Amino acid sequence: MLRQNSLSNIILNQLSLSTNPSSSNESALGIAIIGLGGAVATTAVAGSLLMKKGLQEPVGLPLAEFGHLDLVSYKNLHFTGWDLYQDDLYKAAKHHGVLDREQLAAVEEDMSNMFPLQAIRNEAYCEGVVNGANSTETHRELVVTIQQQIADFKKEIGGNVVVINLASTESHIDLTDEKYQTVAAFEEAMDSHHECISPAMIYAYACITSGTPYGNFTPSVGADVPALRLLANELDVPVAGKDGKTGQTYIKTVIAPALRARALHVDGWFSTNILGNRDGEALRKPKSLLNKINTKGDVLANCLGYPVEDHVVKINYYKPRGDNKEAWDNIDVTGFLGHQMQIKVNFLCKDSILAAPLAMEIARCLDMAGRKGRGGVAEALGVFFKAPMTREGNEPNHNFTEQQLELLRWLEELNELDDTPLNKKVEEKQAI
Amino acid sequence: MLRQNSLSNIILNQLSLSTNPSSSNESALGIAIIGLGGAVATTAVAGSLLMKKGLQEPVGLPLAEFGHLDLVSYKNLHFTGWDLYQDDLYKAAKHHGVLDREQLAAVEEDMSNMFPLQAIRNEAYCEGVVNGANSTETHRELVVTIQQQIADFKKEIGGNVVVINLASTESHIDLTDEKYQTVAAFEEAMDSHHECISPAMIYAYACITSGTPYGNFTPSVGADVPALRLLANELDVPVAGKDGKTGQTYIKTVIAPALRARALHVDGWFSTNILGNRDGEALRKPKSLLNKINTKGDVLANCLGYPVEDHVVKINYYKPRGDNKEAWDNIDVTGFLGHQMQIKVNFLCKDSILAAPLAMEIARCLDMAGRKGRGGVAEALGVFFKAPMTREGNEPNHNFTEQQLELLRWLEELNELDDTPLNKKVEEKQAI
Amino acid sequence: MLRQNSLSNIILNQLSLSTNPSSSNESALGIAIIGLGGAVATTAVAGSLLMKKGLQEPVGLPLAEFGHLDLVSYKNLHFTGWDLYQDDLYKAAKHHGVLDREQLAAVEEDMSNMFPLQAIRNEAYCEGVVNGANSTETHRELVVTIQQQIADFKKEIGGNVVVINLASTESHIDLTDEKYQTVAAFEEAMDSHHECISPAMIYAYACITSGTPYGNFTPSVGADVPALRLLANELDVPVAGKDGKTGQTYIKTVIAPALRARALHVDGWFSTNILGNRDGEALRKPKSLLNKINTKGDVLANCLGYPVEDHVVKINYYKPRGDNKEAWDNIDVTGFLGHQMQIKVNFLCKDSILAAPLAMEIARCLDMAGRKGRGGVAEALGVFFKAPMTREGNEPNHNFTEQQLELLRWLEELNELDDTPLNKKVEEKQAI
Amino acid sequence: MLRQNSLSNIILNQLSLSTNPSSSNESALGIAIIGLGGAVATTAVAGSLLMKKGLQEPVGLPLAEFGHLDLVSYKNLHFTGWDLYQDDLYKAAKHHGVLDREQLAAVEEDMSNMFPLQAIRNEAYCEGVVNGANSTETHRELVVTIQQQIADFKKEIGGNVVVINLASTESHIDLTDEKYQTVAAFEEAMDSHHECISPAMIYAYACITSGTPYGNFTPSVGADVPALRLLANELDVPVAGKDGKTGQTYIKTVIAPALRARALHVDGWFSTNILGNRDGEALRKPKSLLNKINTKGDVLANCLGYPVEDHVVKINYYKPRGDNKEAWDNIDVTGFLGHQMQIKVNFLCKDSILAAPLAMEIARCLDMAGRKGRGGVAEALGVFFKAPMTREGNEPNHNFTEQQLELLRWLEELNELDDTPLNKKVEEKQAI
Ligand SMILES: NC(=O)c1ccc[n+]([C@@H]2O[C@H](COP(=O)([O-])OP(=O)(O)OC[C@H]3O[C@@H](n4cnc5c(N)ncnc54)[C@H](O)[C@@H]3O)[C@@H](O)[C@H]2O)c1
Ligand SMILES: NC(=O)c1ccc[n+]([C@@H]2O[C@H](COP(=O)([O-])OP(=O)(O)OC[C@H]3O[C@@H](n4cnc5c(N)ncnc54)[C@H](O)[C@@H]3O)[C@@H](O)[C@H]2O)c1
Ligand SMILES: NC(=O)c1ccc[n+]([C@@H]2O[C@H](COP(=O)([O-])OP(=O)(O)OC[C@H]3O[C@@H](n4cnc5c(N)ncnc54)[C@H](O)[C@@H]3O)[C@@H](O)[C@H]2O)c1
Ligand SMILES: NC(=O)c1ccc[n+]([C@@H]2O[C@H](COP(=O)([O-])OP(=O)(O)OC[C@H]3O[C@@H](n4cnc5c(N)ncnc54)[C@H](O)[C@@H]3O)[C@@H](O)[C@H]2O)c1
Ligand code: NA
Ligand code: NA
Repeated sequence: MLRQNSLSNIILNQLSLSTNPSSSNESALGIAIIGLGGAVATTAVAGSLLMKKGLQEPVGLPLAEFGHLDLVSYKNLHFTGWDLYQDDLYKAAKHHGVLDREQLAAVEEDMSNMFPLQAIRNEAYCEGVVNGANSTETHRELVVTIQQQIADFKKEIGGNVVVINLASTESHIDLTDEKYQTVAAFEEAMDSHHECISPAMIYAYACITSGTPYGNFTPSVGADVPALRLLANELDVPVAGKDGKTGQTYIKTVIAPALRARALHVDGWFSTNILGNRDGEALRKPKSLLNKINTKGDVLANCLGYPVEDHVVKINYYKPRGDNKEAWDNIDVTGFLGHQMQIKVNFLCKDSILAAPLAMEIARCLDMAGRKGRGGVAEALGVFFKAPMTREGNEPNHNFTEQQLELLRWLEELNELDDTPLNKKVEEKQAI
Repeated sequence: MLRQNSLSNIILNQLSLSTNPSSSNESALGIAIIGLGGAVATTAVAGSLLMKKGLQEPVGLPLAEFGHLDLVSYKNLHFTGWDLYQDDLYKAAKHHGVLDREQLAAVEEDMSNMFPLQAIRNEAYCEGVVNGANSTETHRELVVTIQQQIADFKKEIGGNVVVINLASTESHIDLTDEKYQTVAAFEEAMDSHHECISPAMIYAYACITSGTPYGNFTPSVGADVPALRLLANELDVPVAGKDGKTGQTYIKTVIAPALRARALHVDGWFSTNILGNRDGEALRKPKSLLNKINTKGDVLANCLGYPVEDHVVKINYYKPRGDNKEAWDNIDVTGFLGHQMQIKVNFLCKDSILAAPLAMEIARCLDMAGRKGRGGVAEALGVFFKAPMTREGNEPNHNFTEQQLELLRWLEELNELDDTPLNKKVEEKQAI
Repeated sequence: MLRQNSLSNIILNQLSLSTNPSSSNESALGIAIIGLGGAVATTAVAGSLLMKKGLQEPVGLPLAEFGHLDLVSYKNLHFTGWDLYQDDLYKAAKHHGVLDREQLAAVEEDMSNMFPLQAIRNEAYCEGVVNGANSTETHRELVVTIQQQIADFKKEIGGNVVVINLASTESHIDLTDEKYQTVAAFEEAMDSHHECISPAMIYAYACITSGTPYGNFTPSVGADVPALRLLANELDVPVAGKDGKTGQTYIKTVIAPALRARALHVDGWFSTNILGNRDGEALRKPKSLLNKINTKGDVLANCLGYPVEDHVVKINYYKPRGDNKEAWDNIDVTGFLGHQMQIKVNFLCKDSILAAPLAMEIARCLDMAGRKGRGGVAEALGVFFKAPMTREGNEPNHNFTEQQLELLRWLEELNELDDTPLNKKVEEKQAI
Repeated sequence: MLRQNSLSNIILNQLSLSTNPSSSNESALGIAIIGLGGAVATTAVAGSLLMKKGLQEPVGLPLAEFGHLDLVSYKNLHFTGWDLYQDDLYKAAKHHGVLDREQLAAVEEDMSNMFPLQAIRNEAYCEGVVNGANSTETHRELVVTIQQQIADFKKEIGGNVVVINLASTESHIDLTDEKYQTVAAFEEAMDSHHECISPAMIYAYACITSGTPYGNFTPSVGADVPALRLLANELDVPVAGKDGKTGQTYIKTVIAPALRARALHVDGWFSTNILGNRDGEALRKPKSLLNKINTKGDVLANCLGYPVEDHVVKINYYKPRGDNKEAWDNIDVTGFLGHQMQIKVNFLCKDSILAAPLAMEIARCLDMAGRKGRGGVAEALGVFFKAPMTREGNEPNHNFTEQQLELLRWLEELNELDDTPLNKKVEEKQAI
């Protein structure tokens, strides 16, 4: 049971601490991004550069007001990563049209000199993106390469590295396959270069077995393969995911619990989205869309305590929006004496602007968890995800405000701990 | 600090318990309403009757899913109260146009035989409503009458009584006046029949000094007079208020904390309301509107942690809406890298349908607090109010989800306690 | 070229005439409806009854304010028709949930005694509705039956009869088929009981060859088969269609021309609909939806003078709306100096309430055209349709206000003419 | 009565002509703007420059698609004018924040060298703007100066000049005063330097008596003083006004006539606006707001044919919008059988972007009218105004589409005429 006043204490803490953001950790942190040339990734890179140059305040960064936490400072973030496209990051950022003209100009020089590493290419999982030129290495060879690239990056920056998946959504996967259930079966599939292993899984496996924290911002199946979840727990490597909660689902998990608290019964919830960026185009492929809709689906029932018969979610590609996204929700509720009411929410948002800071916070939190010796599935990061991973694969709590309280509670708990020496379990595993 | 998993425990409890709502308290509870002939009051009375007749499920009642709590069952609620108008309650309900035709027909017989008691009339506080026929009794005489009416009602139903203020909003009051600061000064003003004492205060005083729990659903100044707050704390009489949080403010205190959690800076929040009922008409009077806008004002800053420069709230009388209300909110936010986004919320609601069940829950909770010996300002009921009263008169927490968690925590805590014998302190006070 | 002031004259006429609605035609008019048990049809029947009983003003009837026109009075309308379902009309109306309780009660007696005639059943065109029990008669036999039923109805009421198609949308048809191009080819297909002939075509053919005016409110292919259009023109039988313009398309053809008049370039127009009635369910079938989307498609380009690259139209079945429909439109426009703006329209409408009066007006106008000897395709009724038929099958004008002016002009023109004796050309045709 | 097909002919003309915009008039036209430093004026000046430089297509200019009309080409427009502020136009444009960064850069050189002439200053009519430094000249002296400035400008550009009022809204005026009724009384007030003569009237008088066409885009009282309207008609000088129809009223006069055409009875229309520019700030002054609301008021009744009981119009100053404006309209309608529906329109627009091209078109049309000898009140320009002036001061037609048709008809009519020699009547008047 909660101790009295605990909630308002958290609030008071927030208020007082936001005036003293001076204590944060000044070591370096490397973020290696899968999908480095994408809209979200280049926005994160540019944002970090703009902050370093003093051209940008840390607005829109959820944990900026908690300066007393032992998280690496935004100014000490470094970026590398992989992409199918080999364009320099300035060109990529310009293409995505997220940054305004002035911001682009300010980062042109730096980002023109940043290039993605060659990514794992596998047409079977990224339909239409790879153009047939699949990677020729075996799964195991790819793992070795990735681990070497991470090690090099660590050396280069002189600090920890976290990997964040920001790549295009991969095709839907049937997770009941036996090969996904145990570490042994999974590793056998790895060894035999089996086709059931997707690029996202290879990256996740490379991270977990090298003790590198891994966060999955995409709907793709990565560390949430049962075998990998077990492995991460076993080796104490922080992993989190999946599918960033930025727009409509964010709003949904904010409003639905409040409707429940007032016993306003949701008869139907119609959600439609219009978006015009590369991600929107990818979602036109039925297989990728399936992944996305699935991660949106059960959220509502979870927040309400009952399934909503008419919960409709539509995602429409609509060019005029560009990277801006627009969500329109209509909610039909029944209240006291059976009377009906409606709530309509229209969210004119910018996808990458919402997503990039979350990706950065996930990285900072995973790093802190790793340093404090709190590996395995980081359930407390659920507030950042549409489909939060849980330790046992159980139903997560989607209630946004409760997730936020849980995150803050966990961070305060971590904050009391000292940094631990290197992860012994990973070393042992590697030794085998 | 919260114990791990406590939040999800609450959630799990909710789910399991909603399937077993059988354990609630079967004694009688009387609700004496100031403003018994009003839209909210008659909706509560009718709703209670419809539930008793088995014609209505307890939908829209926030605490219905917590059947294990020792709250009086909805079926055992009884109503009486005061109004300026002496129409029978059927006629009043019909006038307000909240219930549908069938519901009205089902309660016609019962409500035709229910009449309000004569209310305190004071033109100075209820401009345009009383039509000059002020009450002729002294303040003290009125207190005696009210206390006698409450005592009669108790006897009649054979149970406890709680008073809920659902009367028209009174004029704005300057609470810094010395007469409001101490119990002694206030009682002197009572004795001298001073004009600074409003009807709402007389009712509140009559309740507190007779040990009757008192809830204020209106923006009027009642038990929140500093002297009365002190007295309620001193005598351990449960009081709660004020101004029911039903429509736009409810939504505001749900969304604003979620914007803060994502560090989306609110540049402006434009709220406009259109409503066409008697309450809307009363709010056309600048003095009453002032009371209303004040209770809406500081909520936003509280949820966000900073004041919003352009927070505009408009209330417009617009007949076609009738008792239905419509709120339109436009929220301008700045996110990462200074990019701007907008959220628009359109709430097509029914004022009295939202309000009546809250009034009923407030009564049930205050009664339980009284029985468990937990008197004074019931801070944990803050989730029901736009301007929650606090024990010391400090700034309350307006974050809706945190308020809801606090309420549930408090109720669970009360639930562990046994009912206590009669309130000794009140008896002593009365003896003086 | 328009004569000066002509437009404002029309306006002035409207104003003056609406005060003198006394001159309308008092003869009887029979409306025989295909789909008599449907939501729109039963609303029209009930509405007519309510007006006859003096329980309803003629609100929502577009031509009610033009009482000087020689249109049959609303009070003199009589109804019959066909349906697949044989329920009485009271039961059908109750099922559709359009009328409120009081209205239903007022028409119960009358409508309980009205039953649809057995309709043409053809599973191939009405997937899932007929349940396999196809009509066993030949096309020609069906035509004879229908013509006999019309003749009987005429005798019964002692007045003219008009047929209106309000049946479920039939499957999409490829109108380029040779059998549809000439009267000879079409009649050969009729004679040979060819499968290319749909129920809607049989009804249309039966009407045209018996001189009965025919209006098609559905998206189904009826008199717009090229051969039937030619035949109607040749025989001077008034026909009009198709697909009633009630909700989103109505709004679209109102707003789009106004954007053009301000040279606001439409970059994208996203339209989504949620509706929960039987029609909405029918539209879940891809074939029927195709018919619907097609009739919505080219409207926008026509109003704007250029095609809109991102014109998206979605129709979603969503039960909580019931017969109420909701449309949400987002329009992206570019104005002076390339600056972008947005217009969003949210239409909370009632499908059958909008449709029924239009069906009644179409019937009244077609009857008047027939009486005045102005047969063939009634282009001037375009304002009532999403896909207006034209004499030569050319592109129609979709600009709503221009269509309305055209309708009023045409009615004034007809009003100057005397009623003509029977249609000679039809008699000659029948004689063959 | 309209000749058949006339409407579709206009449409066809539009389509064909838009492909041949080559024939327009290549002489020079000077536009002298009252309020040259304002948001609308600087947008017009910048837009014209950008088109001349080939950096901007003529998008957003309503008459651009009618290239066959004898209107002066956009490239041949020249600007001068008056303002209270003496800042160069680049500085002014930058302040208003309408143009984007690139557009500002492209016009910096030109506009830095453009300065407003000193305007008439009169604190009594422009509260808070003039800062007490009223003009010291007499009314008559001001007229002479203005006429000299116009004459100089004509010489400079070698072409005609038109004056457009784009100044801040002046205080409300009681037009029933006797001094406003006849030319003689008005001229006497001019001669006696009477305080009833506002700056806007002095400019209008200077224009009319020098044969200079005058358009009033503001709600201020200018040429619509009865005496000036008479004088303009008498002297055959084209005048038009008043109050540009750009945002909410534009949408209102588009939608309302369409509701009437469907006999959807408007029970209420709630319109609220949020805007944050200088004009919005000026409208916070009750006197100026009164002028604005008045010009918006009767529009609706005019379009519908009956007064709307609950027509509420609110204008709110709300900084985050800047020059962008947002309008939210809620329309309650009753349809067939008394059923209620709602339409909500949300217009996210840019005030000056909508206004500037209209000001330019008004100037081009007034010039053409002058050249063709069609002076006096130009009723056919009503489509551009919220409160269109009429020849006799009668109620105008506000129906947007009808206004647009009327404009096109009138322009075609003018187009048939030859240019006429100088205005004899003005010369005679001047000679007196
Ligand atoms: N933006 C949001 O609000 C949001 C929210 C939730 C989830 N997401 C997810 O985040 C991801 C990124 O979104 P985005 O808008 O930046 O998309 P994007 O299409 O702009 O970028 C994805 C990048 O990944 C690269 N890529 C594809 N396959 C790869 C592979 N196998 N290895 C490495 N790189 C690969 C692509 O070349 C591309 O550059 C998507 O999966 C999206 O669904 C985004
Ligand atoms: N409905 C909501 O959503 C909501 C939300 C928050 C607060 N409130 C407040 O609740 C109150 C009731 O709202 P309502 O819609 O029922 O209003 P209402 O006007 O329908 O009812 C108020 C009733 O109080 C009576 N009254 C006035 N002065 C009185 C007095 N001195 N003693 C006894 N009765 C008196 C009136 O005669 C009337 O019958 C209002 O103050 C309103 O501001 C309502
Ligand atoms: N309501 C609107 O606003 C609107 C607008 C435009 C077009 N329409 C069209 O009007 C038609 C009627 O709409 P509704 O809402 O009343 O639909 P509905 O489904 O309620 O009614 C259709 C009726 O037609 C009957 N039917 C089906 N096939 C038939 C046949 N071959 N012969 C005779 N009856 C047959 C059905 O049994 C049903 O009773 C639909 O085609 C719809 O697309 C409606
Ligand atoms: N923008 C629109 O959509 C729109 C629509 C309808 C009407 N209007 C009207 O157009 C006018 C201009 O709007 P704006 O947004 O450009 O306003 P603004 O405030 O930006 O510009 C007005 C300019 O007029 C100047 N001015 C004031 N009094 C003057 C005087 N006596 N002589 C000369 N200059 C004077 C001011 O100094 C200022 O520079 C306003 O009256 C407004 O109400 C604008
Ligand atoms: Na959709
Ligand atoms: Na408002």
